[in-house]
Amino acid sequence: MREHVRVPRQRVLVPLRWSDTDVYGHVNNVMILRLLEEARVAALGEDWLNSAQQGSGTALLVARQEVEYLAPLTYQVAPVPIDLWVTRIGASDFELGYEVLDEGVIYARAETTLFTFDQVGQRPRRLTEPERKQLLDWAGDPIRWRRRREKTAAPR
Amino acid sequence: MREHVRVPRQRVLVPLRWSDTDVYGHVNNVMILRLLEEARVAALGEDWLNSAQQGSGTALLVARQEVEYLAPLTYQVAPVPIDLWVTRIGASDFELGYEVLDEGVIYARAETTLFTFDQVGQRPRRLTEPERKQLLDWAGDPIRWRRRREKTAAPR
Amino acid sequence: MREHVRVPRQRVLVPLRWSDTDVYGHVNNVMILRLLEEARVAALGEDWLNSAQQGSGTALLVARQEVEYLAPLTYQVAPVPIDLWVTRIGASDFELGYEVLDEGVIYARAETTLFTFDQVGQRPRRLTEPERKQLLDWAGDPIRWRRRREKTAAPR
Amino acid sequence: MREHVRVPRQRVLVPLRWSDTDVYGHVNNVMILRLLEEARVAALGEDWLNSAQQGSGTALLVARQEVEYLAPLTYQVAPVPIDLWVTRIGASDFELGYEVLDEGVIYARAETTLFTFDQVGQRPRRLTEPERKQLLDWAGDPIRWRRRREKTAAPR
Repeated sequence: MREHVRVPRQRVLVPLRWSDTDVYGHVNNVMILRLLEEARVAALGEDWLNSAQQGSGTALLVARQEVEYLAPLTYQVAPVPIDLWVTRIGASDFELGYEVLDEGVIYARAETTLFTFDQVGQRPRRLTEPERKQLLDWAGDPIRWRRRREKTAAPR
Repeated sequence: MREHVRVPRQRVLVPLRWSDTDVYGHVNNVMILRLLEEARVAALGEDWLNSAQQGSGTALLVARQEVEYLAPLTYQVAPVPIDLWVTRIGASDFELGYEVLDEGVIYARAETTLFTFDQVGQRPRRLTEPERKQLLDWAGDPIRWRRRREKTAAPR
Repeated sequence: MREHVRVPRQRVLVPLRWSDTDVYGHVNNVMILRLLEEARVAALGEDWLNSAQQGSGTALLVARQEVEYLAPLTYQVAPVPIDLWVTRIGASDFELGYEVLDEGVIYARAETTLFTFDQVGQRPRRLTEPERKQLLDWAGDPIRWRRRREKTAAPR
Repeated sequence: MREHVRVPRQRVLVPLRWSDTDVYGHVNNVMILRLLEEARVAALGEDWLNSAQQGSGTALLVARQEVEYLAPLTYQVAPVPIDLWVTRIGASDFELGYEVLDEGVIYARAETTLFTFDQVGQRPRRLTEPERKQLLDWAGDPIRWRRRREKTAAPR
């Protein structure tokens, strides 16, 4: 784990599939987001998941994603570690940061904004106190983006 | 097309698949990026694609993606329009902006950073003049992000 | 259309996706079944689909599949024709035959057994008369399998 | 393991993904074949896989698949056991049998015909002696299909 991170992280080992690779032999850029989803589902656990799947409860929906691909990831039999922590907590939404990494290499950094959605009332619902507490336990540093660019003018 | 956009756009009609939807009945957030890939492949055309697939030429690799999900997209038989334009041109990389939209609804906004990669030399290669010209013809406005957040401190 | 087929067929044009190809550059064998699903959804139409998705109605579930891969299919921009017809009609189930084909080449032959499932009662339900009539209109020849093998003894 | 099977089997534990489920909440019928692929890749091991991916060697291609879905499989955190054995060995091809199963339930039975393909010469190549030996070690019983039907006449 890198020195400047002083907060708890969840580490999830996510198995790859042979079919995650594209014609270049890399784990496809879209499939990296599939792996993040797997890490999230594993870390948040079955409670969040079950309430979402029962249809009468809460769905956890994705509002935003950002990802930087820093090194090509090729297929390997061993699962890939994905670190995951909380970068922001709002009223009904929160953000997760991720690093897909292995033995000194960071393959990707990413962030997902999620919000809790009441499937009966069909509107966002506030995070409950137990949910906030769980998220606070996972609070960590903001992502250090390497490639994000502030918007200025159109290309010339 | 919306009034404030005064630049040319490529519009690609991308067919959905029944399997794009998840357990919530929405086109899954990861599959939205799959649709962007399809729009990109269709717009950039077979020349870029073929040189990439021949293995001896240039691969077009993804360095970064950012996407905002603004409205849930459900399965429909009719293809979904995706508008696509160039938001930045660099030495060996460029950025594409996208809007997944239909009849007044914007389902998602996104941006992808792509770079040309020489598969023989195994390093990025500069955009050629014909490539730059094609990209310049597609130059458009920067994305107006609604949900991007500047990073500050850790959550408390 | 081949001469010896004297029965009506549904022909569906199914678009490929760039991501359907695997590391060999072929449309992956699993994705061929995804294309068959698309052809089936398009041919059976929104009535069957909607009742299935409303949750209170009928699901159309897959009980069995068989597929022969006869020639490698590579990515192409043009949609791939898939012919589809009915090879058997039972009390609550039926079988669809498929050919994935193009300009004289048959890429794959397949058959799917489907059954109608009452999601409220949680059991198979009988095909309705309108459903049987629609299926009868599509009745066609049995599949001529090239590679199916009758089972005998274990390998030695 | 069931009593009547007296031959060696390979058992592979294949992790599910949350995205394997469809709108019905079942692991989608197409994704079952994806899981079989994973089991096959894991069992056959990296030697077969690597020679295939190097492009100069042998590809292991799928010629035929048959699958019966016997019980709905829903998402679970624990990996799903897939048993796998050899049902036939030919000159340049062989067949694998599979059972997707767990604690007394058989979710699916399947069979795949695979052949070794020389990517340089672009034709099937004979199985080598070490390959035959490995396959013979895995030889097992033929699949007992429940739903396979002999072809007769067109539906009336």
